[in-house]
Amino acid sequence: MNETQEDRLAGRSDKGRTESFSDGVLSVFITLMVLDLRPPEAEPGGLLAALIKQWPAYLAYLSSYLYIAVIWLNHKAAFKRIRVIDHGLHWANVGMLFATALLPFATAILAGALRRDDPTDVRTAVALYALVGSLLCASWLRLYHYLSQHPELIAQGYEARFFARERRRAAGGIAIYIVAGALGYQVAPLLAMGIFLAVPVFLDLTHEGL
Amino acid sequence: MNETQEDRLAGRSDKGRTESFSDGVLSVFITLMVLDLRPPEAEPGGLLAALIKQWPAYLAYLSSYLYIAVIWLNHKAAFKRIRVIDHGLHWANVGMLFATALLPFATAILAGALRRDDPTDVRTAVALYALVGSLLCASWLRLYHYLSQHPELIAQGYEARFFARERRRAAGGIAIYIVAGALGYQVAPLLAMGIFLAVPVFLDLTHEGL
Amino acid sequence: MNETQEDRLAGRSDKGRTESFSDGVLSVFITLMVLDLRPPEAEPGGLLAALIKQWPAYLAYLSSYLYIAVIWLNHKAAFKRIRVIDHGLHWANVGMLFATALLPFATAILAGALRRDDPTDVRTAVALYALVGSLLCASWLRLYHYLSQHPELIAQGYEARFFARERRRAAGGIAIYIVAGALGYQVAPLLAMGIFLAVPVFLDLTHEGL
Amino acid sequence: MNETQEDRLAGRSDKGRTESFSDGVLSVFITLMVLDLRPPEAEPGGLLAALIKQWPAYLAYLSSYLYIAVIWLNHKAAFKRIRVIDHGLHWANVGMLFATALLPFATAILAGALRRDDPTDVRTAVALYALVGSLLCASWLRLYHYLSQHPELIAQGYEARFFARERRRAAGGIAIYIVAGALGYQVAPLLAMGIFLAVPVFLDLTHEGL
Repeated sequence: MNETQEDRLAGRSDKGRTESFSDGVLSVFITLMVLDLRPPEAEPGGLLAALIKQWPAYLAYLSSYLYIAVIWLNHKAAFKRIRVIDHGLHWANVGMLFATALLPFATAILAGALRRDDPTDVRTAVALYALVGSLLCASWLRLYHYLSQHPELIAQGYEARFFARERRRAAGGIAIYIVAGALGYQVAPLLAMGIFLAVPVFLDLTHEGL
Repeated sequence: MNETQEDRLAGRSDKGRTESFSDGVLSVFITLMVLDLRPPEAEPGGLLAALIKQWPAYLAYLSSYLYIAVIWLNHKAAFKRIRVIDHGLHWANVGMLFATALLPFATAILAGALRRDDPTDVRTAVALYALVGSLLCASWLRLYHYLSQHPELIAQGYEARFFARERRRAAGGIAIYIVAGALGYQVAPLLAMGIFLAVPVFLDLTHEGL
Repeated sequence: MNETQEDRLAGRSDKGRTESFSDGVLSVFITLMVLDLRPPEAEPGGLLAALIKQWPAYLAYLSSYLYIAVIWLNHKAAFKRIRVIDHGLHWANVGMLFATALLPFATAILAGALRRDDPTDVRTAVALYALVGSLLCASWLRLYHYLSQHPELIAQGYEARFFARERRRAAGGIAIYIVAGALGYQVAPLLAMGIFLAVPVFLDLTHEGL
Repeated sequence: MNETQEDRLAGRSDKGRTESFSDGVLSVFITLMVLDLRPPEAEPGGLLAALIKQWPAYLAYLSSYLYIAVIWLNHKAAFKRIRVIDHGLHWANVGMLFATALLPFATAILAGALRRDDPTDVRTAVALYALVGSLLCASWLRLYHYLSQHPELIAQGYEARFFARERRRAAGGIAIYIVAGALGYQVAPLLAMGIFLAVPVFLDLTHEGL
C-alpha cells in the first residue's frame, strides 16, 4: 500500500489495480490481432499462392503488434513513476486505452485498402490511420500533462518534471502524424506508411525520456 | 493476507483473486467491443462513405466503453473498502459481472435497429437496453445491500454505512432506466438514448458516494 | 515467496503465477460466452419475435456462465490450501482448464440441436455434453488425488486429507454425468438437462468440502 | 521491489508487470483456440457424423493447447531466475510472444490442409508449421542468449550459466524443426507431424534444464 490517510481523504488510491487492468486490456488487444490472421480461402493446390497474396495482413499484424508493445513499454515507464491514482488520472489512462483500441481498426482498413489497391480508398485509409495515430499521441499528451501538474501523484525518487518533458515527445508525435497524413493524402501513400512504421521505433528508443 | 483464523473458519478469504478475476473479465469485455468495429464492406472508391455510414456502431462502441470504464471505477471504489470475500459476496460480484456482459449485446441490438431505422424495432431495442440497464443497477443494489449487512467484510478505516448509502445510487439507477425505457417505448426513442448516455456520467461523478 | 531452498531443489515454485494464469484463462472463457449472444437476423419490425426465438442461446449462456463461476470458486478454494506448485500439479491444473474449454463447445452444440429440434441430434448433443461434463469432473478428481498424495505442497494450517475427501465429490460428479447422459440418450433429453443444471448448484454448495 | 537505485539509473525495473502481461497474452492465446472449435454445419440427424468429420480441428486444438501450456511453463521457469527487466529483455520477451502468436495460425492452416487432403497444400502447410516452430525456438534462443550475457538481471541464488546451457535446448529445437519440415515436404507429411507432437513433450520434460 502506497496510499496515506491524506490520499484516502482526497480520493486517491493504490495504482495496483489500474496497472493490472491496463495490462489486461493491452494483452487482449495485442492478441486480438491474431484474429485477422485467418487461413486464406484457396483452390486445391493453391495454398502457397494464397498465403503469399495475404502479405498486407501480415504487415498490418506486425506493425500493430510492435506499436502496442511500445505503448505497453511507455505505460510501464510512466506508471513506475506514479505513487497513487486519482480520478483525473484514471480517465487520462482510460482515454489512452480507448485511442489504442482504434489502432487495430485503422490498421485493418489500411491493409484492406492496400490489398484492393484503389487509389481513392488508399488515400482515405492513410488519412484515417494518421488521424488515429495523432489521437493516440494526444491521449499520451493529456496523460503526461496531467502528471506534470499533479506532483502529489508522483512516486518518491522521481520528479513531475519528467512528465513535463515527456509532453514534447507526445506533441511531436501529433505533428508527425498530421504531416504524414497530409503527405499520404496529397503526395504518396507509401511515404506516409514509412513514417507510420518509423514512429513506434522513435517512441521505443525514447521511452525513458528524450 | 488480510484474513484471520476466524475468517478461515467462516469460509472467508483474501480478496486478491476476486479483484484479479474481475479485472480480467472487465478488461476482456471492454476490448471485445473492438470486434464490432470491423472494416465496412465498400465499393472501390466508396470507403469514406461506407465509414461514415457506420456511425451508430461508433456511438455504441464509445458509450459501452465508457460505461464499462465507469463500472470498473465503481468496482475499485467498492473493493478498496472490502477486507475479505465470503460466498455471498462472490455471487453478488459474479451477478454484477453477468449483468455487465449483457450490455454489449443490448448495445449492438440498439445500434443495429437505429441503422435500419424501423420504428417498431427501435422501440423494442430501446426497451431491451433499458431492461439491461436496470438489471445492472439491480445487481449493484444487491452488492451494496449485501456489504451493508456484513460489516465483518469491511476493511479497517471504512464503514458499512457507506454501502447503505450507496444503495440509494443503485435504486435511483433502476428507477431512471424504467422511466427512460417507458419514455423511449411510448414517446421518443432519442429521449431515452439521451438518458442512457447521462447515467454513466452520473455514476462516474458519484463513484465515491453521493 | 512461500518457497524454501528445499522447494527450489525439488523444482517446486511459487503459486502466484499459476493463480494469475488460471484467472486469465477462466475470465476469457467466461467472457467469450458473450460472442454467442449476437443480435438476431430479423425482418424489419420482427426484432422482438427474433429475440424471443433465440431463447436456447440465452439458456446456454446462463448455464455455462454459472458453471465457469463455480469452477473458479472451486479453484480458489483448492489453491488457497496450496503452498507451492510442482510439475505434476501444473499439468493437473492445465488439464482441468482444458476440460473447461470444452464446455462452451458442448453447450453451443446442445443449444443448436434444441433450436433445430431434431430428436437424433438432441440425443447426440446431450450425450456429448454429458461426456464433457464427466471429463471435467475427472480432471478435478485427478487434481484432488494429486494433492492428497503430495502433502509437501499443502499450505500451513491445511491438510492433505481435505483433498482426499474432495475426491468423492469429483467421483460423484463423474457418475452423475454418466447416468444423466444415458438417461438423456435413451429416455428423455429434458431429464438430462435438468441434471446438467443441478450439478453446478451442487458443486457450488459443496465448494468448501462435503 | 527487487530493483536497486543502480537498477533505476540503468533503466532496469521490476519484473512483476512483465510477468502479468505475459500471463495475460498467453492465457488469451490458449483460450482463443476455442474459437476454432465451432458447432459443425450438419443436416438434420447428421450431427454425430459432422462432429466426427471435424477431427483435424480437435487434434490441432489439443496440440496447440499443449504447446502453449509448455511455453508458459518454460516462461515461468526462466522468469523465476530473473531479478529485473531491461530494455533488451523486454524485446526478447515480446519477440517470443509474437512467435507464439503465429502458432495458432500455422495450426489452423495445417488442420485445413489435412481436411481437404490435397498433397501439395499439405506439404506447403507442413513446411509453414516447421518454419513457425523454428522461429519460435529461435526466439527462445535469443531470450536465453540475452540472459546468459546479462548476469546483472539474474536473481540471487541462480546463475547466468543456466541460460547459457538452455541455449542448447533452443538450438536443438531449431534443427529439429528444419529437419521435420524438410522430411515432411520431401518424404512424408505424417512423419513431420509426429515430430511436431514430440517437440512439446521434449520441451516439457526439460523445462528445468537438460
